[in-house]
Amino acid sequence: MKILAVTGIRSEYDILFPVLNELENNKNFELKVVVTGAHLSYTHGLTINKIIEDGFNIADRIDYLLMTNRKTQRSKGVGILIEGLTQTVEREDPNMLIFVGDREESIATCIVGNYMNVLVAHIGGGDPVYGNADDPIRLSCSKLAHIHFATAKEYANNLKKIGEEKFRILNSGNPALNNIIKTKKISAKKLSNFLNIDIYNSQYIVVLQHPISSEVEDTNTQIQSTMEAVKEFSDINKIKVIGIYPNSDPGSYEIIDKINEYKSDDIKFYKNLPREIFVNVMRNTLALVGNSSMGILEAPLYKLPVINVGNRQKGRLNAGNVVFVEHNKIDIIKALNQACFDRKYRNNIQKLQNPYGDGSAHKKIVKFLEKIDLNNPKWYIKKKLI
Amino acid sequence: MKILAVTGIRSEYDILFPVLNELENNKNFELKVVVTGAHLSYTHGLTINKIIEDGFNIADRIDYLLMTNRKTQRSKGVGILIEGLTQTVEREDPNMLIFVGDREESIATCIVGNYMNVLVAHIGGGDPVYGNADDPIRLSCSKLAHIHFATAKEYANNLKKIGEEKFRILNSGNPALNNIIKTKKISAKKLSNFLNIDIYNSQYIVVLQHPISSEVEDTNTQIQSTMEAVKEFSDINKIKVIGIYPNSDPGSYEIIDKINEYKSDDIKFYKNLPREIFVNVMRNTLALVGNSSMGILEAPLYKLPVINVGNRQKGRLNAGNVVFVEHNKIDIIKALNQACFDRKYRNNIQKLQNPYGDGSAHKKIVKFLEKIDLNNPKWYIKKKLI
Amino acid sequence: MKILAVTGIRSEYDILFPVLNELENNKNFELKVVVTGAHLSYTHGLTINKIIEDGFNIADRIDYLLMTNRKTQRSKGVGILIEGLTQTVEREDPNMLIFVGDREESIATCIVGNYMNVLVAHIGGGDPVYGNADDPIRLSCSKLAHIHFATAKEYANNLKKIGEEKFRILNSGNPALNNIIKTKKISAKKLSNFLNIDIYNSQYIVVLQHPISSEVEDTNTQIQSTMEAVKEFSDINKIKVIGIYPNSDPGSYEIIDKINEYKSDDIKFYKNLPREIFVNVMRNTLALVGNSSMGILEAPLYKLPVINVGNRQKGRLNAGNVVFVEHNKIDIIKALNQACFDRKYRNNIQKLQNPYGDGSAHKKIVKFLEKIDLNNPKWYIKKKLI
Amino acid sequence: MKILAVTGIRSEYDILFPVLNELENNKNFELKVVVTGAHLSYTHGLTINKIIEDGFNIADRIDYLLMTNRKTQRSKGVGILIEGLTQTVEREDPNMLIFVGDREESIATCIVGNYMNVLVAHIGGGDPVYGNADDPIRLSCSKLAHIHFATAKEYANNLKKIGEEKFRILNSGNPALNNIIKTKKISAKKLSNFLNIDIYNSQYIVVLQHPISSEVEDTNTQIQSTMEAVKEFSDINKIKVIGIYPNSDPGSYEIIDKINEYKSDDIKFYKNLPREIFVNVMRNTLALVGNSSMGILEAPLYKLPVINVGNRQKGRLNAGNVVFVEHNKIDIIKALNQACFDRKYRNNIQKLQNPYGDGSAHKKIVKFLEKIDLNNPKWYIKKKLI
Repeated sequence: MKILAVTGIRSEYDILFPVLNELENNKNFELKVVVTGAHLSYTHGLTINKIIEDGFNIADRIDYLLMTNRKTQRSKGVGILIEGLTQTVEREDPNMLIFVGDREESIATCIVGNYMNVLVAHIGGGDPVYGNADDPIRLSCSKLAHIHFATAKEYANNLKKIGEEKFRILNSGNPALNNIIKTKKISAKKLSNFLNIDIYNSQYIVVLQHPISSEVEDTNTQIQSTMEAVKEFSDINKIKVIGIYPNSDPGSYEIIDKINEYKSDDIKFYKNLPREIFVNVMRNTLALVGNSSMGILEAPLYKLPVINVGNRQKGRLNAGNVVFVEHNKIDIIKALNQACFDRKYRNNIQKLQNPYGDGSAHKKIVKFLEKIDLNNPKWYIKKKLI
Repeated sequence: MKILAVTGIRSEYDILFPVLNELENNKNFELKVVVTGAHLSYTHGLTINKIIEDGFNIADRIDYLLMTNRKTQRSKGVGILIEGLTQTVEREDPNMLIFVGDREESIATCIVGNYMNVLVAHIGGGDPVYGNADDPIRLSCSKLAHIHFATAKEYANNLKKIGEEKFRILNSGNPALNNIIKTKKISAKKLSNFLNIDIYNSQYIVVLQHPISSEVEDTNTQIQSTMEAVKEFSDINKIKVIGIYPNSDPGSYEIIDKINEYKSDDIKFYKNLPREIFVNVMRNTLALVGNSSMGILEAPLYKLPVINVGNRQKGRLNAGNVVFVEHNKIDIIKALNQACFDRKYRNNIQKLQNPYGDGSAHKKIVKFLEKIDLNNPKWYIKKKLI
Repeated sequence: MKILAVTGIRSEYDILFPVLNELENNKNFELKVVVTGAHLSYTHGLTINKIIEDGFNIADRIDYLLMTNRKTQRSKGVGILIEGLTQTVEREDPNMLIFVGDREESIATCIVGNYMNVLVAHIGGGDPVYGNADDPIRLSCSKLAHIHFATAKEYANNLKKIGEEKFRILNSGNPALNNIIKTKKISAKKLSNFLNIDIYNSQYIVVLQHPISSEVEDTNTQIQSTMEAVKEFSDINKIKVIGIYPNSDPGSYEIIDKINEYKSDDIKFYKNLPREIFVNVMRNTLALVGNSSMGILEAPLYKLPVINVGNRQKGRLNAGNVVFVEHNKIDIIKALNQACFDRKYRNNIQKLQNPYGDGSAHKKIVKFLEKIDLNNPKWYIKKKLI
Repeated sequence: MKILAVTGIRSEYDILFPVLNELENNKNFELKVVVTGAHLSYTHGLTINKIIEDGFNIADRIDYLLMTNRKTQRSKGVGILIEGLTQTVEREDPNMLIFVGDREESIATCIVGNYMNVLVAHIGGGDPVYGNADDPIRLSCSKLAHIHFATAKEYANNLKKIGEEKFRILNSGNPALNNIIKTKKISAKKLSNFLNIDIYNSQYIVVLQHPISSEVEDTNTQIQSTMEAVKEFSDINKIKVIGIYPNSDPGSYEIIDKINEYKSDDIKFYKNLPREIFVNVMRNTLALVGNSSMGILEAPLYKLPVINVGNRQKGRLNAGNVVFVEHNKIDIIKALNQACFDRKYRNNIQKLQNPYGDGSAHKKIVKFLEKIDLNNPKWYIKKKLI
């Protein structure tokens, strides 16, 4: 079975990686990767280099990420990607396309698979999060994809609710968890050196905040209240701050500009961190603040308290480690105090049940793929669409 | 309220037309039309000229239809259209996009609306037909569109089943019915003259068969069995045949080539017929054979027996006038005999209930649109996606 | 040296073929072909199949030919092609791009080569023909290409006149002539059978007329006067007519429609003829009428009288076999009479000197390419542009 | 006469502006502007806002600038732009397209004009500068454009040399000079405040260095030697440094990163400066260092010594104010010492003759355009191409 994986951004590649690795090491599969989007952007850390290092065979590089902050960026970008991907899929003639999530790559892959009559497997469907332009895209992809790997039982059930046939759905859990489990421990001293911030003698929190499309006009004030809160909390408690720059969506430039105003010896931001560094940073942080999906989907594995600011991620399955607060400095500081210093609260989080699986998702996914009979027409035509 | 309608092919424009006409004549709306796809193709009869005649303001002409018969045609075409439509939507800055159905225009409009944060209204969602590349696209559009005008009660219910909120859904019925109702009668003599075939002294059947994407490799043998059956039926019974060439999808060239082999004084095919001619042709035909959606969606209004050949249209609501047969000459002839000459069968069809409304869909749709409060955020963000 | 050839239409591929064949059989070169444009169009005879039969390695298929007859067709087409070709060139990473002529493929290849810093070799520059949208494109390509293979001495000199450095230019002659020389003779009987027209007992002329962009509004009347003339000449003299359908440019549909009105047992038109058939048809025809470049560039090898109708091909080097006439029935018939029946005129043409070489162009070109030192920066940067 | 101007970057818009302003104020012309490229990029200062402030009617915004530093950026970018611009030109149906220079916008405008049969006017042709991917593009545009406004007599002659007809060419001079002449004086104190650097009590030099495509691999070491030289020169002589970030070409990110390492209280860089600030900065600087075309084309008006580092701008007409040096710290410092402190050298520059006109180019251009008879076919078809 020849599989073409499509990936466009670091965060989504991290989820895909354990699956790709498992496919690469299985002689029943031939794997190639289409690298697009932010992976090809210098500003976003040229993460294609990570994919090359990981040793995957690259089928094509497809530029589509436009250098603008207007809403046209993602819309036109999907069009450019579909044009290029069609060319790749015709040449490579794969048996299956695979992708993760809800971004430009996702819908482009589904559309190309649909018209080119190639099976499409989707990791991460059935998630009812709302408020961002990504969210309806995810559901739209579920109606086009032929095979669904859900990251939680509830999400697998959601896929059935919207009419997907049972035999197409597997509750695999979140493949990204395997990255975390497999990552070797790095000492706080080494981390401090690498990051050029002293987190050996000092505790720290992590900040990761993206723009949200339905509120893009408020981006500036939203990130400002987070940064104000974080700075005050850091000053008062002598706690360091480690941040990651946002994704490439419209509004990201405003966030970067605002973040840069707050950078200091105690508040450091990074374009991208190598996975092993990042995982170790997450293992030792007091809390995560912002609106990254990681707070919902991966933080439970770390038993990590999360303050989710604003409406992004609303609707998602909360393992119990997430508190939702408004874009308001005082509320954020209050939540940070609870997350970092309230012993009882922190103890409860240590006991949570992770609904996103046990880190073996990649193995379950590949086993499922191995059993697919490519000659069985049931996979290609959905006779039941509702 | 400024509305931008997107249309790409004659068959879908016919459904859209009564709605556009109603909007154009209502001073609460400003309407422009984006003309794309087969409308701009000489081969498909340059139906943009009909839109110009109808008097609508054209926002942009966007070419995307590629001159190939490969599967890449529709896939790459969607990408090209999204690029162009993004440019149009930014410039025109409409309050709403409106479209019909399940084709390239449909998914392109939904994607652009989603990322550009513009409301999208979809006519024709909730229809569970399967087997063609269009069909999952229709469902995918439903998860992205903000407002749904279903053509039947069952379809409106289907939209709720896949998670769409009730307040977004209206069972309007099929707007195209109004075209039929409003069309003046033309005498058989005049029709004969116009069509250059004698249907004044002779009865006739109508043929309309498109390729189906999931069986595109069999296109040639499929159209051959239809044409063989039709020819034999015509020869034996001295019945004329009026046909329309297929749409622009991959496989259409093979169909045209095969059709051309069978053309004769008794079997005539046309690129496109003016609406008033076509409606009168349908009013007087003994039966319709092929796989056009019209057999399901419009033929009930004519109380017309339909022989649907093959898998296209399977899954759709059958008003009782449709018989499904395989791609087999003998079966088709048998069904034609029943449809044309079995008095009891024909009488039963005269009594059917049309599930697709009473021809007032356009009025219901515009009334619904008038009541929408564009400042209410509920329309823009689907808080319930499943 | 890895070479990527770019081809988009049968007429231009015929010129390229001997060069590709020579490269394929030379172990110093690795060759791949990018197939685009009309080669991928069913309407134009799917000539990609010929390229596959010829045994070349296809790097990518890139659709760009839009199904419209508007001027947007070629303009937007170039853009779509550049997008796709950039992707191919980055992946294949060739040392050189090679192409023929003056069409969409030509300018797209030059632009991609320029920005991707890959050498570009152009076959057919320096030709001062004017009146068609292709013509300034040809010159524009000459300013971007790094290596020039001219088809005549005068054209090589023209390249120097517009500022190209001498070391970049070779007067190779026209590679297409080799196809003609190498083609085996086929008897008139066999030709008659293949073509389904009796050219064994009857003489014939050949018609090949394309639209011209600067006069596209007059396409209809232009082809009509040619067809009227040809029909009358055929009727009076009992001479058969063999025609080829036009290329894909705007206006081509009008030409096809008009041609179809004149088709009869004595006047046959073909979408495409296999090369060996076509060459034998040309060997035995009394004359060629229309406006194909073949009348100028290849007919001298056949010592064939040509009637060039209208302004297309004006400015080109006339070997002495071409008469230019207006779009006027009487003038065309007069010229046909001279070309077919004036013995003295026909004898003079037998004595002409062919300025387009001796059929060894492909060998000269490959020898030139073999000597290029890819590490010498002189090839990449034109220090003298004027 | 309806004119559509196409602009993509601040530097080129500055040249275009006086012409647009003159057209806007002339009732014989209807003007619209297509805004593309870096104008739409937040990173490049969203200079579309300047165009809006200047009061021009915007026909369309066309994104094409890809967020990558690979060579694909400009190549694919041209394709995307051509697609969008074709749509705009069909809708607007202008009589003429106008553009400046040698960038993606330039070649895209020429191609669209050629195939859409719309006149194209080019400002800045005939310049034999070499070494950058832009340079052959400029010449390529000259062969496609119908009307040429050269910025110097020698350049006008060059256009004739490459075969352009005399009646199409006007030596207008450089329109940008008018911006400089018209700009009001701003005091050093106010400039210091605005720029947040003290250039009231201290002298300063200006740095403006772009990547060069034929040496893009050396970008990092090239900018480093400039920055090292500038820093040392600044330290030793207590002279401030004002810099502008580079354009959007591949290599620009490396330049920005390197520049950022050298920023200090004495060395300040700006994304973009308002025109009136920039002109006043240029009026008072001791010298300009880098490789901007401004050093060649505009600095003569300021009688300003220029150190051009490296091969960019080579081949251009030097008014006598430019010294070319290698990418070598010591050579740059030596040249800076001469430029800033060698009184005799500086006196000679005061006496130079400006070959780029007297600042009235915009008036000459508009007068030329007014006299064009749009019905005369000579403008549309170049009967003499060589």
